[in-house]
Amino acid sequence: MAGHVHLHPADAQGIATLRFSHPGKLNALTVRMWRDLRALLEGLNRLDADEGPRVIVVQGEGGSFVAGADIEEFPDFRFDAETLAHYHEEVVAPALDALLDCERPLVAQIEGACVGGGLEIAACCDIRLCGESSRFGVPIARLGFPMAPHEVEIVARVIGETTLRELLLEARVLNAAEARERGLVTRVVEDAQVAAEARRSAEAMAALSPQALRLSKRALRQFAHRAPLSSRDERAPHYDYASSAEHREGLAAFNERRPARFGSPLPPADKHDDKT
Amino acid sequence: MAGHVHLHPADAQGIATLRFSHPGKLNALTVRMWRDLRALLEGLNRLDADEGPRVIVVQGEGGSFVAGADIEEFPDFRFDAETLAHYHEEVVAPALDALLDCERPLVAQIEGACVGGGLEIAACCDIRLCGESSRFGVPIARLGFPMAPHEVEIVARVIGETTLRELLLEARVLNAAEARERGLVTRVVEDAQVAAEARRSAEAMAALSPQALRLSKRALRQFAHRAPLSSRDERAPHYDYASSAEHREGLAAFNERRPARFGSPLPPADKHDDKT
Amino acid sequence: MAGHVHLHPADAQGIATLRFSHPGKLNALTVRMWRDLRALLEGLNRLDADEGPRVIVVQGEGGSFVAGADIEEFPDFRFDAETLAHYHEEVVAPALDALLDCERPLVAQIEGACVGGGLEIAACCDIRLCGESSRFGVPIARLGFPMAPHEVEIVARVIGETTLRELLLEARVLNAAEARERGLVTRVVEDAQVAAEARRSAEAMAALSPQALRLSKRALRQFAHRAPLSSRDERAPHYDYASSAEHREGLAAFNERRPARFGSPLPPADKHDDKT
Repeated sequence: MAGHVHLHPADAQGIATLRFSHPGKLNALTVRMWRDLRALLEGLNRLDADEGPRVIVVQGEGGSFVAGADIEEFPDFRFDAETLAHYHEEVVAPALDALLDCERPLVAQIEGACVGGGLEIAACCDIRLCGESSRFGVPIARLGFPMAPHEVEIVARVIGETTLRELLLEARVLNAAEARERGLVTRVVEDAQVAAEARRSAEAMAALSPQALRLSKRALRQFAHRAPLSSRDERAPHYDYASSAEHREGLAAFNERRPARFGSPLPPADKHDDKT
Repeated sequence: MAGHVHLHPADAQGIATLRFSHPGKLNALTVRMWRDLRALLEGLNRLDADEGPRVIVVQGEGGSFVAGADIEEFPDFRFDAETLAHYHEEVVAPALDALLDCERPLVAQIEGACVGGGLEIAACCDIRLCGESSRFGVPIARLGFPMAPHEVEIVARVIGETTLRELLLEARVLNAAEARERGLVTRVVEDAQVAAEARRSAEAMAALSPQALRLSKRALRQFAHRAPLSSRDERAPHYDYASSAEHREGLAAFNERRPARFGSPLPPADKHDDKT
Repeated sequence: MAGHVHLHPADAQGIATLRFSHPGKLNALTVRMWRDLRALLEGLNRLDADEGPRVIVVQGEGGSFVAGADIEEFPDFRFDAETLAHYHEEVVAPALDALLDCERPLVAQIEGACVGGGLEIAACCDIRLCGESSRFGVPIARLGFPMAPHEVEIVARVIGETTLRELLLEARVLNAAEARERGLVTRVVEDAQVAAEARRSAEAMAALSPQALRLSKRALRQFAHRAPLSSRDERAPHYDYASSAEHREGLAAFNERRPARFGSPLPPADKHDDKT
């Protein structure tokens, strides 16, 4: 199959590399890639503290980080509330949670597009380094669908509500300087330096006390989760949009390379009168 | 009466305009304006998803957003703990909550002063656009009163504690560049471009899937509210300052255009000795 | 004894000064200094609202704020989980809590190093002013130990998770411009102007309504604490690292002025195979 995620085991300095690869699609995520990601991280998370890599660099193949989900697969599951909820709750969320649960430092080496699921993955990494031409966004409202609640929670905590509203509601794509200004990335370097900077960061962390990093990550995780998350049942109604016309139109328009027409023609002029 | 809030119904692109108007007072908020705001938003919030505007631009008349509350009204209710609590809990909080509950995107078009209640209203909007000469602050400690707890919670979540302390405790007024640096506004543009930028943002959002925007806003709201808010009873003691001398002095000095003297002459030199 | 904390009582404008002093050690914190800090703040917190200083400037002696803990004392308590937990929970946490509980504004006048416990103390102040050559960090992973959970919670709330991960996991030291960009400080001024700027801020706050500042601080504190903190029992396992080899090696290397070797030689190459 086309897309996959590859783990290069730790090198002599204890640095492993997790690489997203989906040639010709800017590493767009397939269901299989989400499952790969989860399995690889859960494998790492089962290792004893003194086994395996000290630091993991997360990167994409061919000059792109991850350009969102592979839309070609969407008809398989997006138009039914049950399969849609399964996708977000049983495929995407556990992979992101496995990243958040990772006790080893994760460095996101962000080149090119960091979009949709790619942005969510980056938000689960500890250090986010990008190049000057990197681009960040979650323009899914163009495709007729919202961000799932668990994913909102993860991303909002890292990048803040103001920025997430800009990304989700305006479907805006930010450049590297804007991403840094909003605290979305840790540091910006020249495009040609992203890999070297990620390596420097990883080497610096690999030389530090693994136990200290593990315990500090644990305390950060405890802080982030101190309020109970909403339950699966509470989140269920979120997925009722699956079979809606807007959802279908958004994806159809994308596939047909034409602008989406949401609820067009526009509703009649406001029926409720100005009350002042 | 002088001040009011006006809702211009949706135009052909589905964009409505909510306008604060209080001529000669930089749109300072009266109790009536807070009630107008609440009623208009609650009206919008009762509409079905396919009725009414797609996006609402929130603006002030005559080159100012909103310059705080209309202090002329304060003697009517501020010096009694019961009427003060009623003002914050039954007048201001429900209006802000109605903004937060709005499932349609809200664009704050910020020209000139964005102060006090104006800053609180802006914090409840999704996108905040301002001009280079805009000014932001909550300098109410000069007037002898604090920010009410529910309002602290809303503003702190959006602009962060560090910035809110600067605004509340130093009574500092920030310029547009400082506001952007602190994440208080989404974007700054030239003064002459604020209306056009707000229009661009609103048009961009009006072309997106209303359902996607609605569901993403719902998830963001769920995230923001995941910890229970403190109860009305717990907040009651907050309003005991109503009849205090400092509160009266702050407002009297403002009305008499003289500097306030809080607790002056200063208390005697420290009675407790240095213990080291 | 060498290190101590000194409280200069309120001057004619109601401004007191809390000064860290540990000559020759850049004001590194001893257990005694943490106890001094707690006792002085608890003394201030017991005063009635109309007694004592209106504003407190927190500063270090001799051009440095506070350069972390005095490592010379560490062998006395760091290598036993019980004495280590006692240090963090009964010495450090109550001092930080006493700062957070202070109802008078606290201005951190940050010159030079603001590191480790110094950064934690600054995070508990309301306004943080620094000079262009100030430096910020918590590079304790070099010494083989993590940040304690209560301290993570305090610092993360103020400076955000992204920045705290950079400081803790990369052991990175930020300059003043980076600190401002990340919202870690309120304002940066020229080195020669830090004391004057702190004075200006304190004088501005001393002229405002003490009651308004007290009540706004109370609302901010209520907001910050609205989710219950984890319990002492839940935090207990965090301190099991006390007697570990990494913890001992980190501190030994520091004392012997040599690089620490954590878990070296490196673990064998990854045992779990790449699964994709």
